Formats: sequence, structure tokens, C-alpha cells
Amino acid sequence: MIVANGRHDWALLTDLYQLNMAYAHFRQHTGGTRVVSDLFFRANPFGGGYAVAAGLATAIEYLEQLRFSETDIAYLASLNLYDAAFLAFLRDFRFAGDVAAIVEGTPVFPALPLLRVTADVISVHLVETALTNIIGHQTLIATKAARIVQAAAPGRVLEFGLRRAHGPDAGLLGARASVIGGCMATSNVLAGKSFGAQVAGTHAHAWVQFWQDEELAFRNWAQAVPGGALFLVDTYDTLKSGLPNALKVARSLAAQGGKFLGVRLDSGDLAYLSKRARQMMDDAGFADAIVVASSDLDEHVIQDLQRQGARIDVWGVGTNLITAHDEPALGCVFKLAAVEQDGQWQPRLKISDNVEKVTNPGVKQVVRICQADTGMAAGDLLILHDEPLPEGDAITLFDPVHPWKRKTIEGFTARPLLIDIFRGGRLVYQPPALLEIQQHLSTELAGFWEEYRRLLNPQEYPVDLSPKLWQLKQEMLNAIRSDFA
Amino acid sequence: MIVANGRHDWALLTDLYQLNMAYAHFRQHTGGTRVVSDLFFRANPFGGGYAVAAGLATAIEYLEQLRFSETDIAYLASLNLYDAAFLAFLRDFRFAGDVAAIVEGTPVFPALPLLRVTADVISVHLVETALTNIIGHQTLIATKAARIVQAAAPGRVLEFGLRRAHGPDAGLLGARASVIGGCMATSNVLAGKSFGAQVAGTHAHAWVQFWQDEELAFRNWAQAVPGGALFLVDTYDTLKSGLPNALKVARSLAAQGGKFLGVRLDSGDLAYLSKRARQMMDDAGFADAIVVASSDLDEHVIQDLQRQGARIDVWGVGTNLITAHDEPALGCVFKLAAVEQDGQWQPRLKISDNVEKVTNPGVKQVVRICQADTGMAAGDLLILHDEPLPEGDAITLFDPVHPWKRKTIEGFTARPLLIDIFRGGRLVYQPPALLEIQQHLSTELAGFWEEYRRLLNPQEYPVDLSPKLWQLKQEMLNAIRSDFA
Repeated sequence: MIVANGRHDWALLTDLYQLNMAYAHFRQHTGGTRVVSDLFFRANPFGGGYAVAAGLATAIEYLEQLRFSETDIAYLASLNLYDAAFLAFLRDFRFAGDVAAIVEGTPVFPALPLLRVTADVISVHLVETALTNIIGHQTLIATKAARIVQAAAPGRVLEFGLRRAHGPDAGLLGARASVIGGCMATSNVLAGKSFGAQVAGTHAHAWVQFWQDEELAFRNWAQAVPGGALFLVDTYDTLKSGLPNALKVARSLAAQGGKFLGVRLDSGDLAYLSKRARQMMDDAGFADAIVVASSDLDEHVIQDLQRQGARIDVWGVGTNLITAHDEPALGCVFKLAAVEQDGQWQPRLKISDNVEKVTNPGVKQVVRICQADTGMAAGDLLILHDEPLPEGDAITLFDPVHPWKRKTIEGFTARPLLIDIFRGGRLVYQPPALLEIQQHLSTELAGFWEEYRRLLNPQEYPVDLSPKLWQLKQEMLNAIRSDFA
Repeated sequence: MIVANGRHDWALLTDLYQLNMAYAHFRQHTGGTRVVSDLFFRANPFGGGYAVAAGLATAIEYLEQLRFSETDIAYLASLNLYDAAFLAFLRDFRFAGDVAAIVEGTPVFPALPLLRVTADVISVHLVETALTNIIGHQTLIATKAARIVQAAAPGRVLEFGLRRAHGPDAGLLGARASVIGGCMATSNVLAGKSFGAQVAGTHAHAWVQFWQDEELAFRNWAQAVPGGALFLVDTYDTLKSGLPNALKVARSLAAQGGKFLGVRLDSGDLAYLSKRARQMMDDAGFADAIVVASSDLDEHVIQDLQRQGARIDVWGVGTNLITAHDEPALGCVFKLAAVEQDGQWQPRLKISDNVEKVTNPGVKQVVRICQADTGMAAGDLLILHDEPLPEGDAITLFDPVHPWKRKTIEGFTARPLLIDIFRGGRLVYQPPALLEIQQHLSTELAGFWEEYRRLLNPQEYPVDLSPKLWQLKQEMLNAIRSDFA
């Protein structure tokens, strides 16, 4: 996402084996065969009950700009792996396939195709790795952010993990995903410029260390920064030095018509210190001033501090958010689901001894079933693309692994989640602004019962198969396994 | 590191508070004051005994290209935080400071300055976040790679985590760091192009799924790919289908003068399957064919498989390496160490209730002390920049927290580790090629006793202070604490 002059250079951002497979198809004259591949994850991260789809806008930029430059071609030629005809093919390559996707800011679940690519097999190989990287990363961080925002409510969350992110655009795209997940702002200035994210920040310990005298440092800060001052109060001693100095400067600031915005705590017992800070600011007549707190926070620490009655208005979260510290990979995969033969889609599945690693075959649509009366989500259904949307008075969903586990919803709505993004390489979708995506998530999450949303040990949200898809999958599994019985 | 036309666009890749502090200094007319800041980490990652310095070449590129573009300035103006004079200052800004660093591929330890920046305080604020991001990330991944490579020896390691990395350049720069850490190759084609890393890869399950018939898939693969074929054998059933089909195709390949390179195992019991694969390939006369294995590997799993006698020649490592899965942040910090006043360096330290968070004051050099007879590293010493290098017949090192813990080395060499990279904004250092850095690490690591290098519960390598620096730190601590006694 780090773009000079608005252009990426990501054509070689792939695994060598993708190019090798593209080349093998090229040589076998099967490169034009159309296939369908699905991008999905297998388990909700962080022990939670949902994930938050994110990264589509970046994926769109990638696909639109995908070109092999002359230096790319020269490098590939230097590997002595490919013939001149293939290099010429790559030089002219443009992505001309179809893409359907679940839009950003939608709560999503294991096995749902977040992205479905329909294209010639060479194109699918060329885009698989980058798409998985982009969608997997942002979905992971948006999910972490949503959990942290959930724990911090009614307080708000500021993302400021750039220095701990995995390189420059992990910080940039991570900031984007954090805002999708509900963060009010980011410290990342480039994310402000690139995506219109709100940016925020005050000063560091270095400002106080520079002046050494803390009161002088606060005074100089208030003087230099327009629009009001927020002081970091733990450089020396929060209660004995930081807060008293902050309030002293706040009073003289107020006397001059300036604005004291509040304090930031960055170490120590945040529950105790925030209560003391709140009390001291209230007593001094600064009821509007806020407490910002940071220091190795995540959703669990925040929830715990909330339970202890911490008086924190804004939670600054860095490392644990931007690196998704407790589970830094979503494990997204991109799997072949169908191959076109004589104008017909032939389903494909990948089997595995690991039952949850068996894929769902065929060209699929995702349908979100909601209770008509409450509007609350009841379950997601994978159907084959040529099946009609479910309709009628009631629908029975059954667990694909334990089909005797079933539930019937009387009165439901059915909404397809995969919408067209590219048709024949042409973009037919306009990604919304970042804050619209954030708002979309907030609205959508409100449509899920608390049981699915809680941070620990949530109820498992149903992701089921239509009877037709379930039947197809069983038949394919039986056929393959009988070969090795 | 994703560069279009060789140019980054990273000037705004910073936290807003850095710009705010730069602005406050600008307004207070203190922006020209020279300061020294150190970039360091506080604890070795992964429970190990060392880290591997990496990222300097990227940091150099960042500093050399640092410019605020017109669109950057326009964006900053739109925030209504800064006056026109400051924006004009930024428009002309170039990094003109001094940088000293420990070169890439050097084993490093907590509290050592990996980078020491000496510049006007505004410059230091403007570069802090990006430098911490770049060095912290690559040092983390190079360290993880070194551990995995250590566990895999004499087998070799292939990095292929791009799809699970935190966005595009986490994959790219992570691949770079992995090669520094000792990986023989990466799957990441852009890393090959950008850094001259060796690239490697074969085919995915999708290739077999496409053809459905595994033998046909292998045959077509061997036909299409020049230079020899390596087959992924677990799409259906490794022992009943994959290996027999691979050997069948291998034999006909050999009959035609082609080359069978080996097989890749990607699931199941890798110890058992690799022994079986080895046996079957040997029995079939393919003693040179190799076994490549992958599937959620890290240094501990690899070590365990080694103990079980797994016959694996190349270990493919993805997610756990590229995300540093068990500890995805190094926690690098960048701290003010000195401020120039009247031509003199005034030391600064940051205190904390957390003893290990207290910083080391002053302008420092890092000295590596080795035993003269064995050449083995005995400890690192932080000294003040105006102290001479230790010399003489013997040196006594003492623990900075428990000064009664001391050891004397009779016969030693002392080597300064911080070398000049930029002087007055001019680059005075030429980063070596990637494989030279990898070789440097290999040589340097051999100079550390096994006790410091083992993967779990290593002996703590001494990082001590010169008596003069230790004295300075104690005096400063006592002076500050006496204010709040």
C-alpha cells in the first residue's frame, strides 16, 4: 500500500510455484481453462466468535494495477526457468477475470468464501498469493480491533502501533483495518493521508526529557500546540509530579483562555491511577478533561480494567493490535473449487485427514439467514450458484458435520453476501469510504446476538450447507476415499 | 520496501505526535538543538539468548529518500495543526544527521543500541517511528529464522510465508530478514528481484486437483517444468497414492533422461512419512532425490522431528517464521540519551518503576569483548563515546544490576560494534549483498558458545556498563528519585 506516484509494483509479490504452475499450464495449453477458487479461513481468531472482512479495497487496487514491468520480465528471464513465449505472455498480462466478494466491514465466519475468483487458471495462480496476503492480514487486524473496541466501549480506541508493525505497510494497512474494526483514530499519519482516517496524538516522554523540568515541558507544549493540550504524566512520577504539574499548567492555561484536554497515563496501575487522575481533574474543575491510557493493552486487559472501575476515556492500543499479538495469522487459504469442462463447472475438493481441512466443492454463494421478526442473524448458508435463494415460511438449517443437529427458523430473510466486484476484469464496484465501512460493521454487528459476539467462549455461529451442496460434497468424498480404502 | 520506480513515499510513515513534537520545537526555536537517541530492544525474543541485527539497508534507503512531497504537505496543511512556516520547513527537509549502527547479521542483545542517531531534535522526531518499525521488524524475523535454521541443520530452510505475512512488504522484508537469518531460499519472487535472494518452489495441491488424476498431474508437471521435477505427494494419500505415483513418473522420467528431484510432504506425520519416503526413493534407486517437508513448522517442531529421526532435507517454513508467531513483536524502542548544551552532551535517561525499562544515559559505544585465545565472545560493554576502548592484559566485567557479580577475562580483544553509517546526512557505508550478510551472521554466531545459542533456557550473555557509565547512571537515578522521595 506504500505507493509512490499512486502505483504499486506487486506483480512479483507471489510465490515462485504460482509462476511455475502458470508456466506449466501455459506449456500444456491448459492455461485458458476457467476455474473458480475461494479465499476463506478455517477458524475464528483469538478464541472469538466472528471475524471482520477487510482488505477488499486494497485487493481491488492490486488487481487493477497488476502488470509485469520490464524489470520484472528481465528478472524472470534471468532465472532461466521460463521460455520466451511465456515471458511475452506475462508482459501483456492483465487480470480479466470475475471477482465476487463479501464487502468490508461484514462479520464473517469460517469456511465462508470472502473472495471468489473466476478466471482462467493462469490468472488464478498469478493472483492467489497476493490476494491471500492482503485479505488475510486486514481481516485479522480488523477483527482484533473490533474485539478491542467492544471491550473499551463506551470508551474509544486509538490505534498507535506503527513502530511495532511488521514493516511499513503492515503499519499502514493495519491502521486502515483498525479503523474498519472501530478505532476512532490512528496515530499513523500516512493512513490519514491515504485513507482519510482520523489521526491523533500528543507528545512522548522525549518531550519531557528534553526540557527535564516537567512543568516547563508542559508549559512549552501548551504554548506551542494550538487547539488545546494533553499531557503525558508518567515521565517521572505520575501522582507526585506528572498530575500536579499538569494541573498547574492547566490552570494557567485556563486563565489565558487556553484549553486543557486531559492527561495520558502510560505505565503503572492504570485502574488506580485513572481514578486518581479523574478525581484530581474533577476537583480542579476540569470535568471535561479526559484520561487517555496506554501500556500493553488488549481486549482482555481492557475488560479487566473496566471491571475494576478504571476511569479511562480513550484507550491507546499499539503492539497487541497491530501485530494481532496473541494470534498473528488468520490462516487464510485459497482453494480450487471448480474447473470448467465443456461449458460445465466440474466441482473440485481438497480432501484431508483433518476433517475441518476438507474444502467445499463447486461454485458457491453465501446466504445470510436472519429472523424476519427480530432481524437478528440466525446462520449462514453456502449454496451452489445455480440454486435459488431460499424462500418460504420456514427454513431448516443442519450442521454439515453432525446433520442430526438442526434448527428451523420460522419467518426468515435471505441475503446473498457475495457481490460482484470485477466482471471480465472490469471493476463494477465502488469501495465505500473508510468511515462508511466502519459504520457498516457497527450496524451489522448489532444484528448478531451477544452470544456470538462475546470475547471468550462464544456460541458457535452456524455456517451450514444447502442440502444440494451437502449431498455433492458427500458423494465426492466417498468417491475419492473409495480409491484408497 | 514495495517500490514503484525505485522510490518510497514514507515521509508520513510516522506517528502524529512526532510531527507535533517537531512542530513544538519549531515554534519554541529549539528545533536545532542536537540530541542523541538510541534504538534498542529490552529482551531477547522467543525465550532465546540472542537476536540478529537486520533492517539497516532498508533504514538507509528510508533516510536517503526522506522527502515530504507536495501531496504530503497539502495533507498536513488540511489538518490545520501547523503553521505555514513549519510546512515550508518540511517541504525543504532532508535528513542531515549522523547515524551509527551495528551492521546487519550481527548477533545482538538487550540494551545494545542497534542504531544511534545524532541530529537536531526535529530530525530525530521525524525519523523515530519509521526506523523503529523497520529495524524492529527485520531483527525479529531474522532472529526467528536463525533459530529455525539452527534447529534444521544440517537440513536447509526455505521461507514461504508470503501469503500469511502482515501485508505486502511484511512478506518482502520478512523474506529478506529470513535469508539474513540463514534460509537458503524464499518462495517470494519479489524478494528475489529486489535483494538477489535465491527463489525456490514447486507446485501446489491445485495442480493435482486440476488434473484430478495424480499420476497424470505429475507427468504433466514433469513435462512442463524444465530442470527436474519435485512432486507434492499428499493431495489424496501420501503412502497409497502420492509416493507410488511420484516414483512411477520418476522412473519414466529417468528413462527419458529427465530428473526426479524429490517429493514434498505437506501434512500427516512428517517423521514417519519422511522415513518411508526416503526408503521408497532409495529402494527405487533415487538416493539423490530429496524430501521437502512443510506443515506448521517452527524451531521446536523441527527439533522434535529431528529427534525422532525424520529424514527431511529441506524444511519449508511459512506462517510461524514470517509472523514470528510465538512472539510477533520485538518491542524495539527509541530513547533520548543526550542533549547538546553549549557544545557539551548532557546525558538523559528515562526512569521507570520497571527497573529493566530504565535507559542508559549519554552518547555510547558498544564494545564486544572476546577471549583472545579462543576468539569466543565473553560479553558486551557499553562505554561512553569519549572513553578509550578497553585495553590491557585483563578486563573485569560486572553486572549492572548486581555489581557484585563480576568476571575477569585474562587476554581479550575489544571491538567497537557501532560504525558510522551517515555523517552529516551523507551515506558513508555501503551495505553488503544479502548473502554476505548471511555469511557474516554464520561466522559471528560461531563465535558464541553453544550455551548462549541454545534455543531454550540459554545462559544470559553479559551486557555490562563501563565503570564510568555505570557511575553516571547511578548518580542520575539518585538525583531524580530524590525529588520524589
